[in-house]
Amino acid sequence: MKNHKVHSGWRHKLHEIIYEADTPNGKIFDLTLIFLIVASVILVMLESVDEFDAKYHQTLYVLEWIITIFFTIEYIARIISIKKPLKYIFSFYGIIDLLSTIPLYLSYIFAGSQVLLAVRAFRLLRIFRILKLVKFIGEASQLSRALKASRTKIAVFIYVVLILSVIMGTIMYIIEGDEAGFTSIPRSIYWTIVTLTTVGYGDIAPQTNLGQFMATVIMILGYGIIAVPTGIVTSEINKEYRSGKPKIGDDNYVHVNTQACPSCAAEGHRDNAKYCYNCGHLL
Amino acid sequence: MKNHKVHSGWRHKLHEIIYEADTPNGKIFDLTLIFLIVASVILVMLESVDEFDAKYHQTLYVLEWIITIFFTIEYIARIISIKKPLKYIFSFYGIIDLLSTIPLYLSYIFAGSQVLLAVRAFRLLRIFRILKLVKFIGEASQLSRALKASRTKIAVFIYVVLILSVIMGTIMYIIEGDEAGFTSIPRSIYWTIVTLTTVGYGDIAPQTNLGQFMATVIMILGYGIIAVPTGIVTSEINKEYRSGKPKIGDDNYVHVNTQACPSCAAEGHRDNAKYCYNCGHLL
Amino acid sequence: MKNHKVHSGWRHKLHEIIYEADTPNGKIFDLTLIFLIVASVILVMLESVDEFDAKYHQTLYVLEWIITIFFTIEYIARIISIKKPLKYIFSFYGIIDLLSTIPLYLSYIFAGSQVLLAVRAFRLLRIFRILKLVKFIGEASQLSRALKASRTKIAVFIYVVLILSVIMGTIMYIIEGDEAGFTSIPRSIYWTIVTLTTVGYGDIAPQTNLGQFMATVIMILGYGIIAVPTGIVTSEINKEYRSGKPKIGDDNYVHVNTQACPSCAAEGHRDNAKYCYNCGHLL
Amino acid sequence: MKNHKVHSGWRHKLHEIIYEADTPNGKIFDLTLIFLIVASVILVMLESVDEFDAKYHQTLYVLEWIITIFFTIEYIARIISIKKPLKYIFSFYGIIDLLSTIPLYLSYIFAGSQVLLAVRAFRLLRIFRILKLVKFIGEASQLSRALKASRTKIAVFIYVVLILSVIMGTIMYIIEGDEAGFTSIPRSIYWTIVTLTTVGYGDIAPQTNLGQFMATVIMILGYGIIAVPTGIVTSEINKEYRSGKPKIGDDNYVHVNTQACPSCAAEGHRDNAKYCYNCGHLL
Repeated sequence: MKNHKVHSGWRHKLHEIIYEADTPNGKIFDLTLIFLIVASVILVMLESVDEFDAKYHQTLYVLEWIITIFFTIEYIARIISIKKPLKYIFSFYGIIDLLSTIPLYLSYIFAGSQVLLAVRAFRLLRIFRILKLVKFIGEASQLSRALKASRTKIAVFIYVVLILSVIMGTIMYIIEGDEAGFTSIPRSIYWTIVTLTTVGYGDIAPQTNLGQFMATVIMILGYGIIAVPTGIVTSEINKEYRSGKPKIGDDNYVHVNTQACPSCAAEGHRDNAKYCYNCGHLL
Repeated sequence: MKNHKVHSGWRHKLHEIIYEADTPNGKIFDLTLIFLIVASVILVMLESVDEFDAKYHQTLYVLEWIITIFFTIEYIARIISIKKPLKYIFSFYGIIDLLSTIPLYLSYIFAGSQVLLAVRAFRLLRIFRILKLVKFIGEASQLSRALKASRTKIAVFIYVVLILSVIMGTIMYIIEGDEAGFTSIPRSIYWTIVTLTTVGYGDIAPQTNLGQFMATVIMILGYGIIAVPTGIVTSEINKEYRSGKPKIGDDNYVHVNTQACPSCAAEGHRDNAKYCYNCGHLL
Repeated sequence: MKNHKVHSGWRHKLHEIIYEADTPNGKIFDLTLIFLIVASVILVMLESVDEFDAKYHQTLYVLEWIITIFFTIEYIARIISIKKPLKYIFSFYGIIDLLSTIPLYLSYIFAGSQVLLAVRAFRLLRIFRILKLVKFIGEASQLSRALKASRTKIAVFIYVVLILSVIMGTIMYIIEGDEAGFTSIPRSIYWTIVTLTTVGYGDIAPQTNLGQFMATVIMILGYGIIAVPTGIVTSEINKEYRSGKPKIGDDNYVHVNTQACPSCAAEGHRDNAKYCYNCGHLL
Repeated sequence: MKNHKVHSGWRHKLHEIIYEADTPNGKIFDLTLIFLIVASVILVMLESVDEFDAKYHQTLYVLEWIITIFFTIEYIARIISIKKPLKYIFSFYGIIDLLSTIPLYLSYIFAGSQVLLAVRAFRLLRIFRILKLVKFIGEASQLSRALKASRTKIAVFIYVVLILSVIMGTIMYIIEGDEAGFTSIPRSIYWTIVTLTTVGYGDIAPQTNLGQFMATVIMILGYGIIAVPTGIVTSEINKEYRSGKPKIGDDNYVHVNTQACPSCAAEGHRDNAKYCYNCGHLL
């Protein structure tokens, strides 16, 4: 792969290491990053387990700081090595990357805010890209396209389900009294949704005969209702299959590499591309 | 949009404000209405929360009355400003609108009847129409068409499931005794439906080995059974997609406005319509 | 409808009343039958409710006997009025009809055997036929054809799920001890199926960290597994739709009446049929 | 069926008995094997039931040893009678067969390791092959082909669901405190998956209003999410149906027998095959 030199020196090399995965250094960086992301998520989990935290508090604390400092350096390096840093900063990954570092710094001001580090879990989404899982990305985008197409239908559906839950919840509140756990309408609505979605905790359950009869009606309703989103999504995926969307092996499908535009960070350039398809910058 | 004057004066203006959303006044009225409907539903919920009601009883009471009086005036205005009021009164929305106001008045005669105000939640369905969500209405009608087409099949299915539940419930009543919670056949049937629909509260659960074995059979049955309504609805939605029903962008699809016929309140007239498609009245 | 006289006198008239629904007497008989079947099922249920039985024991007892005697007479009449009684006796409905009467007689020998009267619920299936619900029967047979076609696939599927449950149940039995409710392998398998089918009673729930982790794996597995029967049934219903099976409105669909062959009791003769399609007997 | 003699004498006969099912001896062997596999799985279950084990410990112990010795002999016979034993030893069934025997021997060294005998349940998968259930195998392979094709999509889906569960679990851990059972992030994640998959044990349930609201969001999310794997699998099965894969009755489908290659144990040779399709060895 030929890479036209845009800005010489360390900034360009940094860009190649961080944003691409075709050079040995890039690969090492990416694997380190995946390891640290996974480690950081596990760290946050372990800290919340009391018996574990009591024993290894010091170790966890040190590891937490090491990872945070690495993520901070990575974040700054990402900003420096790109030509249009604002595009990265306000992109989805840019925001996630920032949110993955600041909670620990904030924890000196607001105690306990380090639990917000859980937002790091979103960084796990990077794995798709890092591992050059073009196939996975293709499948994921096929899925998300189908979900996007059924968005409006599912919104209408959820809206109608919510109205139904309000009505049913109020009826159950009237039928069952406080002693069965239906202490207020919002709580009854909570119970209705627990039942409609077939979750059924059992923390609140109808006691009277009429209440149990109504519950039966809601359950059978929920049984039928669950068919609707499934039907919607299935039809969309079906359509997606039948439609002429590019798939691997098709003529109108070209192989893309992991190279990112040094100017706008756009990805998915075809192998022999010379200019960025997004901003026209020389690659 | 040209609007042929039918009955001059305030009644016509009222009709335009209440039934249409294309004039500035109509838009203000609609937004106020949405706000009040949502507010009224939240009010009824909050009243049922004991700790909240204890603190703010007076405020909730006053707000409740303000909204009810607004809804009453709106209801009367709707009747006055339409040429054929009976059509509105006995329409779905007409009945809902009436039921949204009277419970509070009735609460002076029958204590506690104000909880029936929950029927107001149905008014939330108006939001589709008010917000000119033509797209949403299109999707909703596509969904409801598919559901309508699968009505008979789902009825047959539910009927067979109910018969099965009666049989299974009786068998479980014979196997398990009173101590496991299977105190009567209706209660056993309730448990069977809780299990078949995979809700599974756990308030009643089999204790004997034979009972747990039967429960396993019912669960696996339910697992297979849940596939049936999903299959039905999915196939109908699939058919709906393949069929030549008008969709946005099709040639045989015209844009409709929110204008309502001043005579029969029919909606969905095409933009350049001069006469009502339903009663032939001049628009 | 012309009906060739086969055996003159009361036997033929009885046949017409009991097996057909086109004459006024036949209709009265059918409606009485539906009423009594529904009443008999409700009676059995009410008897099992202790507080209800304590109050109205005598009434329930008398009504039970009236219905049983009617059913007995009906059963004998069905045998007498048909030419080949053995065919009826060993048919699905013949066995159900017999089982709907004898438990009460047996209750004099074996106390408590009257609960077996629940088998009467199966008689409810007759409603489809009695009400001439040709449309419902059409839909039902379309459904059952699709289910029949997916029989083998679902059998394979359930078999594999059972093997998986045995494995998973044993693993959970090893991980969790007696104190969490996993007292034996069969009970652990019961819990596994409760979890796999997403019923989730909560009467048994893992307590250890490893057990909860395994439970998570089983749940996500169950989540994916539930897709399989749905996919099978949906595909079959889809195929059913696309295939050239006769549907109402098709040219190769003829209207059938409720007339039954006086010789072999076969049903579904076309309106102008002269001979039974099944045994060639004059209708 | 002609069978070219490859190695004369008892080894060949043994091969015919064990690996094939077309001779009377082969059939007897297969039926005995099925019976013993089922018996061995039931034995392991019964041993774990304390009250049963207390009574019949001696009988169970003896039966366990008889079956284990039979399985050991069978395992050795399988190795001896095949030309390339390594292929069998490292095949899926070879490993299962070994694991089905050794735990009992190991139980003299490591107490309690006999529960690992549950791995025998996997031997039940042999039933498909033993019973010559070509039809079942066809359906099973059709299913597994559809599942294989949707593998990547389901992997992407589960990965995204897990990330979501980590985020949601952490949020619930922050909202709800220790007293509601959300004692650590891993436990909160466990609860989130219990809710998302609509299992809903109820051992942990939100107590605060905000927690119950979040739970409602997760449930409705789970309701929509369950549609995705179903949609994927349904579409794949649909495609499988439409595609030109060989099906029974097709021209490009030939009948295969249960004969196994004496050299490499490959199965599924066509009726008139002379040479193994896999290794070219004379059959």
